[in-house]
Amino acid sequence: MKKPLILVTNDDGITAPGIRALVEVMSEIGRVVVVAPDSPQSGMGHAITMNDPLRIHKVDVFPGIEAWECSGTPVDCVKLAKHVVLKGQAIDLCVSGINHGSNASINIIYSGTLSAAMEASLEGIFSIGFSLLDYSFEADFEPAKPFIHRIATRVLTSPPRACRLLNVNIPKGPDIQGIRVCRQADARWIEEFQEARDPRGQTYYWLTGEFVNHDHGSDTDVKALEEGYISVVPSGHDLTIPEAIPQLFHLQNE
Amino acid sequence: MKKPLILVTNDDGITAPGIRALVEVMSEIGRVVVVAPDSPQSGMGHAITMNDPLRIHKVDVFPGIEAWECSGTPVDCVKLAKHVVLKGQAIDLCVSGINHGSNASINIIYSGTLSAAMEASLEGIFSIGFSLLDYSFEADFEPAKPFIHRIATRVLTSPPRACRLLNVNIPKGPDIQGIRVCRQADARWIEEFQEARDPRGQTYYWLTGEFVNHDHGSDTDVKALEEGYISVVPSGHDLTIPEAIPQLFHLQNE
Repeated sequence: MKKPLILVTNDDGITAPGIRALVEVMSEIGRVVVVAPDSPQSGMGHAITMNDPLRIHKVDVFPGIEAWECSGTPVDCVKLAKHVVLKGQAIDLCVSGINHGSNASINIIYSGTLSAAMEASLEGIFSIGFSLLDYSFEADFEPAKPFIHRIATRVLTSPPRACRLLNVNIPKGPDIQGIRVCRQADARWIEEFQEARDPRGQTYYWLTGEFVNHDHGSDTDVKALEEGYISVVPSGHDLTIPEAIPQLFHLQNE
Repeated sequence: MKKPLILVTNDDGITAPGIRALVEVMSEIGRVVVVAPDSPQSGMGHAITMNDPLRIHKVDVFPGIEAWECSGTPVDCVKLAKHVVLKGQAIDLCVSGINHGSNASINIIYSGTLSAAMEASLEGIFSIGFSLLDYSFEADFEPAKPFIHRIATRVLTSPPRACRLLNVNIPKGPDIQGIRVCRQADARWIEEFQEARDPRGQTYYWLTGEFVNHDHGSDTDVKALEEGYISVVPSGHDLTIPEAIPQLFHLQNE
């Protein structure tokens, strides 16, 4: 059987340890091509670059692996990978990450890692965003690797019919309990701003905040992670709330 | 009755004609405070600024209206508005736009306009993103104004129970047929890249593309707009595809 073609990207930049771990696992499964940002792009959400030109360069970062760095956002990387780097080739799987830090719950909305995976899924490519709950650049990715291998190989052989995107979050530490398929918790960030003054006396602000989960369901990604399980959330791109449609019919009448 | 407090933002920047039109309509309904980006932020999606400090300045752009320009993304503007500009005050409504160009269907994912509105909805504020299907800076917002007024006043008095975010798109031209409440069409962009060379002989790329709708449902936002109606899509932030969960249970077994 022909080796699957696997596109690897991320949002922490092509030199981040997380993408190196992901390239190592994917190399055992298929032919890997890396197209990743040339600088960190955390929190870029689904940003695309419309008012600046994009640049892309072949780099020798991973021994024996074709790799390109791109001047744009994670979503730009996926678009360039499909239309410039791999034009005409069928991509069997796109994996993004391993992100340094959680993308569970509402973080899927803010995350460049997941937005890159979502972009590939919009192109019809089965995609997975992987994140480890450890912000450190010294994070240990070893315990996660066999699980990432299993998830990628299983969805390559038997992908779910109803979705093309998985949001996978992995607890920190050696004692991973297993895998749970779950729904996105309805949690959010409570923001704060740290105020400071520059040498000219002008005020500026740093964004900071705290993740708060008021969703006490037993079937959420946050709950699975709290209990030491890897969370897998099948995800899409339709934000419609169908049950609210009839509640708005009064707008249609004059 | 106390006048409602209305936060106005956008992604085209505080000097764009679209936000001026929106401020004019909202001034008839409540007390308006504007917090908007100091430069165009189209296509920023749900990007947030984590690695740079944010700056915010009071500006005199709209006669008699409190207005602030912010160095960050549309989502940053909403966070700064709530936590720095209006801290402690209950915001009754957040409106974002009027965007110059469509944010129907999948554009909700890429749009800074809608991401700003979504951010406010995550903060518990009822929010509406307004977009006009006309990219021109000379776009005529007059035909849209009475409809925007109606939608905003109706949701202030009787908001839907099941959602806190509306994606409203408005057809171009004087002959608006009315309002239709609908679902997000499952359409997407087919990308192309325009290749060029800089004076040093280096290749670069401009992102370009074509919007393609393969969703032939009669109940979509794209269909409503094609037939000359304003589309109103009640929207959320949960991307889970529940029906795919059982299709992935095989991942849970060893």
